[in-house]
Amino acid sequence: MLIAQIKVLLKESVLDPQGQAVEKALGTLGYNNIEKVRVGKYLEIMLAENNREAANKQVREMCERLLINAVIEDYTFTLVEV
Amino acid sequence: MLIAQIKVLLKESVLDPQGQAVEKALGTLGYNNIEKVRVGKYLEIMLAENNREAANKQVREMCERLLINAVIEDYTFTLVEV
Repeated sequence: MLIAQIKVLLKESVLDPQGQAVEKALGTLGYNNIEKVRVGKYLEIMLAENNREAANKQVREMCERLLINAVIEDYTFTLVEV
Repeated sequence: MLIAQIKVLLKESVLDPQGQAVEKALGTLGYNNIEKVRVGKYLEIMLAENNREAANKQVREMCERLLINAVIEDYTFTLVEV
């Protein structure tokens, strides 16, 4: 069994208002060493699959078909054995 | 400079309808080896801080004060140097 841990963020060039809001809120709370905040999605998908190569291919395909909007989002993932 | 990569998921005991929706959608697309999907938040916070210990403490505090709802969410984070 493998778990795919997928991190999704807006591309650098895309405005991230949620990140800006968090950044401002942290500043208001007195944290003045915050340089930048980006807010995105995190998914964990448990796969009944033991072949890492097949899982890699499948996760990439699922991201591109359903999970990610490739126009505005970037993603990275890692596979963890359970 | 350190980047805190924060992963947030609903606690195991909390219903995750977004995860269930993705799970169902992946099934509809023909992926029949999906055991479970959890959907959460992902944050990257860039800190003007080089002391890992101080950064660790600060990130935990920021999570508990603002970023996380400790009643229903769990979080983990890692610090990456840039």
